[in-house]
Amino acid sequence: MEINLQRMLNDLTTIVRYTRTPHNGCTRFSYSVEDRQARDYLLRQMKKLGLSIKVDGIGNIRAKCGKEIDQPSIMIGSHIDTVENGGKYDGLIGVLTALEIIRVLKEKKITLRRPIELIIFAEEEGSNFGVTMLGSKVLTGKYNGEDLKSIKNGSGNSVYDVAKDFGLTVDLIEQDIIREDEVDAMIELHIEQGAVLENQNKSIGIVQAIAGMKTFKITLEGDSNHAGTTPMDLRQDPLAAAATIIAHIKQVAKTTALPTTVATVGKISCQPNMSNVIPQKVEFFVDVRDVESKGVDLITKELMEKVNAVATEDKLQSEVELIGASDPIKLSSSIVHKIEETASTQGYNYIKMNSGAVHDAAMMTSVADVGMIFIPSMGGKSHSPDEYTKEEDIKWGGDLLLHVVNNLAAKTQEAY
Amino acid sequence: MEINLQRMLNDLTTIVRYTRTPHNGCTRFSYSVEDRQARDYLLRQMKKLGLSIKVDGIGNIRAKCGKEIDQPSIMIGSHIDTVENGGKYDGLIGVLTALEIIRVLKEKKITLRRPIELIIFAEEEGSNFGVTMLGSKVLTGKYNGEDLKSIKNGSGNSVYDVAKDFGLTVDLIEQDIIREDEVDAMIELHIEQGAVLENQNKSIGIVQAIAGMKTFKITLEGDSNHAGTTPMDLRQDPLAAAATIIAHIKQVAKTTALPTTVATVGKISCQPNMSNVIPQKVEFFVDVRDVESKGVDLITKELMEKVNAVATEDKLQSEVELIGASDPIKLSSSIVHKIEETASTQGYNYIKMNSGAVHDAAMMTSVADVGMIFIPSMGGKSHSPDEYTKEEDIKWGGDLLLHVVNNLAAKTQEAY
Repeated sequence: MEINLQRMLNDLTTIVRYTRTPHNGCTRFSYSVEDRQARDYLLRQMKKLGLSIKVDGIGNIRAKCGKEIDQPSIMIGSHIDTVENGGKYDGLIGVLTALEIIRVLKEKKITLRRPIELIIFAEEEGSNFGVTMLGSKVLTGKYNGEDLKSIKNGSGNSVYDVAKDFGLTVDLIEQDIIREDEVDAMIELHIEQGAVLENQNKSIGIVQAIAGMKTFKITLEGDSNHAGTTPMDLRQDPLAAAATIIAHIKQVAKTTALPTTVATVGKISCQPNMSNVIPQKVEFFVDVRDVESKGVDLITKELMEKVNAVATEDKLQSEVELIGASDPIKLSSSIVHKIEETASTQGYNYIKMNSGAVHDAAMMTSVADVGMIFIPSMGGKSHSPDEYTKEEDIKWGGDLLLHVVNNLAAKTQEAY
Repeated sequence: MEINLQRMLNDLTTIVRYTRTPHNGCTRFSYSVEDRQARDYLLRQMKKLGLSIKVDGIGNIRAKCGKEIDQPSIMIGSHIDTVENGGKYDGLIGVLTALEIIRVLKEKKITLRRPIELIIFAEEEGSNFGVTMLGSKVLTGKYNGEDLKSIKNGSGNSVYDVAKDFGLTVDLIEQDIIREDEVDAMIELHIEQGAVLENQNKSIGIVQAIAGMKTFKITLEGDSNHAGTTPMDLRQDPLAAAATIIAHIKQVAKTTALPTTVATVGKISCQPNMSNVIPQKVEFFVDVRDVESKGVDLITKELMEKVNAVATEDKLQSEVELIGASDPIKLSSSIVHKIEETASTQGYNYIKMNSGAVHDAAMMTSVADVGMIFIPSMGGKSHSPDEYTKEEDIKWGGDLLLHVVNNLAAKTQEAY
């Protein structure tokens, strides 16, 4: 039993055309014209398959297949929205794989002992409102109606208003909250968005845990002065101090922290930012992630100590603000085991790994046993028109998920 | 013999009012309405004193005093233009001290054996055209008429056009080039723009040398990727690399370089500059200065080596561009000696020191024996509304210069 790759790539080609930026990657925000086009296409495919479809108040699409429709489902899917000038594969490949799997199981006339549910989460990327995974958060009850009225986009329109204008029954979101007895297991297939699989020459990553993270904003303020007239020992230079901290954090993350720990400074600003003036003020952000809280804690401690030491030595004012935090999430060991067993039996070229990025699947851990399958992103590129996953890897990932789903949902296991 | 501080402060109060930014420091660009107002006031004062005045083609004002008008002069003065939102003292205090010295010598009826020449250099700060010390450069023949047509301001207007519109005889600049036989010695009194005098609790700095400088632009390009999904050992992070270089250069300048060496990174930019994305590209500037070429050379070597080492280790593309350079300038040892002798005899609280900033005086070294006197800048602040020099320090500086000028120019030395 295998997926029909060509049929799935036809879906991909169709949906990739629904973009606001035809010559510069995919731009398909939730609740946009392009989102509507993609939804209409996918809903037509689901109807052809005779699925029982529900679109909830925030725009998540849930479509069930199977006779035992009231049994807890095996849920598969991902999202179809993108960032600005994003790639073809992020999210979409998980949705199209799920659709294709249901097609194959239908064609093969597999009798299911529990329903298979295709899910398309709305607004995963946070492109509209800056809140990521909005669909899965609302589905799992993490936001209520009042929250949706207060979360606004750049034009000042709330989620509530935008969803309502899109024709959604946003007043009913509390009735739509998913219950534990509705779903047995959830598996999301997604591109890795990193280069671990490519570097290890693997086609499949079985995700064991999703990293927790802390984001810090560090502000250092010194004393701006003429670059020529101020001797080194009279300086209070916040940029030189920031450099010492950034270099130290990289070194700690690379050497003394856990192998899974990553720490990144991706954003920095400097005032007045003139080449012949010692800066007055520097701000930078430190993004720390690890599947082990210990790794995040270790970098946090090093960061605090180094900021204090440097600020004292260079007579700077310093502030460290925690501006975001999430805990690491362990995925279901029984699902991980099931996926690995299948991959191993079938001779897939896989590794077990962790996810540094958060996904809708992480939200679902509060109601179901959750697993994730990664397929490679060439060069680790994602959120970019350069995002690329080889067709053969899509095939490997789709087939693996097909077999796992068949295993979990079918009444009798067909030989494959 | 001493200057009349109150009379000089009255001049200061008057001219400080000629600013485009009345509530936020002094903004008095050359060739502006405010410049015209300041010039008119100063020309009136010069005429009252019966000086022989010439305004040259670029706007330098040269005003001579004394009967032996064809003898080489003892030149004193500075500039009256400012940066945007600059201070009250930068440049102006040197001009007003020079004016006040001529007033005192006239009042005291001192007979001069050589003329004293008050000079006001035009466009020192580069606020209009980005070229600093334009007036002194043109006066000493470093730019010709064609250059002035090609140097343009932000609105695309050339120096040539702006100067002509201001009513200057810009076509005659080559006739205005100063000759060695016109000037014997030039002494500029200026605020320090650094905090060395304040830190050593001194009122006077006798400048021995003006630092040379090199400015480098460093570009590092790596590979932008997701901050969560890219393990530390798969990263090509140009910001972490830049941090290592910046921290190293600070350390070398502070410890192993000469005591006179300074190195500054004041400007940095990062792309795409998002907190959860490993940067693609970082640019930063390194400003290196020293009165000894050896110090500049040492930092240059360390910078090149460190950029290469870091780029190799982190697999980055790197480029180091030299975007500006000037050699160190030794001031006249005989003038330095004369100033020190006077300061010492009079019991002034002085040190000999170097200048990290370049001044019009540096341009004049090609035609005359040049000296500089610094007076303290509180907190080292300059180019800022916070610029401040104590009245008592202005008095010390003015009196010292008065005595030195009297010494160099008067027929007989009055007891003082």
